[in-house]
Amino acid sequence: MMSEISQSKVGRPRRIADAEPGTSPRDQILAAAASLFVRLGFASTSTRAIAEAVGMRQASLYYYFAGKDEILSELLDESVRPSAEFARSVSLISPDQLPPAAALYALAIVDVGTLTNTPHNTGMLYLLPETQDERHHAFHAVRAELQAVYGRLGMLACAVPREVRPFDSEEMVGAMLIQLVEVVIQLRRTESGANIDAVTIASSCLRMLGLPESDITESQRSFLLLGKQEHELA
Amino acid sequence: MMSEISQSKVGRPRRIADAEPGTSPRDQILAAAASLFVRLGFASTSTRAIAEAVGMRQASLYYYFAGKDEILSELLDESVRPSAEFARSVSLISPDQLPPAAALYALAIVDVGTLTNTPHNTGMLYLLPETQDERHHAFHAVRAELQAVYGRLGMLACAVPREVRPFDSEEMVGAMLIQLVEVVIQLRRTESGANIDAVTIASSCLRMLGLPESDITESQRSFLLLGKQEHELA
Repeated sequence: MMSEISQSKVGRPRRIADAEPGTSPRDQILAAAASLFVRLGFASTSTRAIAEAVGMRQASLYYYFAGKDEILSELLDESVRPSAEFARSVSLISPDQLPPAAALYALAIVDVGTLTNTPHNTGMLYLLPETQDERHHAFHAVRAELQAVYGRLGMLACAVPREVRPFDSEEMVGAMLIQLVEVVIQLRRTESGANIDAVTIASSCLRMLGLPESDITESQRSFLLLGKQEHELA
Repeated sequence: MMSEISQSKVGRPRRIADAEPGTSPRDQILAAAASLFVRLGFASTSTRAIAEAVGMRQASLYYYFAGKDEILSELLDESVRPSAEFARSVSLISPDQLPPAAALYALAIVDVGTLTNTPHNTGMLYLLPETQDERHHAFHAVRAELQAVYGRLGMLACAVPREVRPFDSEEMVGAMLIQLVEVVIQLRRTESGANIDAVTIASSCLRMLGLPESDITESQRSFLLLGKQEHELA
């Protein structure tokens, strides 16, 4: 890979210092940008500062990314894609095999994991004004898809008596469920970040939908079973 | 007011165009800054751009505010103070008069109102990297106080059986409750902003704590009674 790149005449990478073994320059750029965007904001971070943090020249950075926006796009994508892919696959399982509450519980657990694992808490980047931009429409589409699955499963799992009608649309349920899971982003900003408990967060999603404790316990069991089956199939 | 200001020699306001009747130049600056911060971000907004949006000179803006940070501080404060003040007063009512669940329900309703009424959705400003700064410690203290009341009331109101132990600290309950209420900020970013339903959000807070529908209805009644009493006292 490196030798291929070295044959290129334009903008080839140089002076890559402190390269951890196994970490590609591309991943180093992403990690450095994540840290700077989250700490200083997008507008206050220059490609020069990102390049310096990695120990490469600015021109070399452009060998990997067209610019700041492309780096931000990639980071946004990483913060949502694993959850969206899980949401897609869980949507394919029939409700007989996995009840909506159990599917929702599993999705919340996976999404907490995605948000807990983003480098430097990049889950918060979608909250920036710059990310509302049309340039990031691909990200918004993937996130909307994820939120729609939350909404659909949430509406199906909802155990609040019909006459109470707590939620008037899948959109509202989806917004509230994804919001609850994204408490991870706020917890990671504080010392509480060490105590993120996926089970508490996923159970709270089901409780918010009015599910009794017995159903929540049942969903937890289904989730563990799902994991066991996948493990055995693998 | 204007004549007083005109007597000042330094940085007096000039060319204040489109001044709505009853809106002070100070409030116009805050509204213009709110709109720009939320749309473009803090770093990308200059005091010059704010002044231009109001139709005054940059020098005149400094007559009212020391700079961008002071404007941001003021906007942050407005997005949390009404809720924090209500939280303080509700904390003074004895649990015999207002059960914790009813107090929490009332707090959530008031907080949804605060976040719904901020100009240009300035509730989202606290999510910016720039706001994490030590300069905004006063805001963080007020918000921490609000979150602490959510946590204390939430822990007291929690109806999940003890053996399940869903929340291991007031801090965690507080973080999850305030997060749920702040769905308002996300809803206001989309078309759903028109459909913000305080009752749904406040009820969801209680459901998340495992309260049965009968207790939620009771809390809603207590809240309406509280409002009626305040109205009669006034």
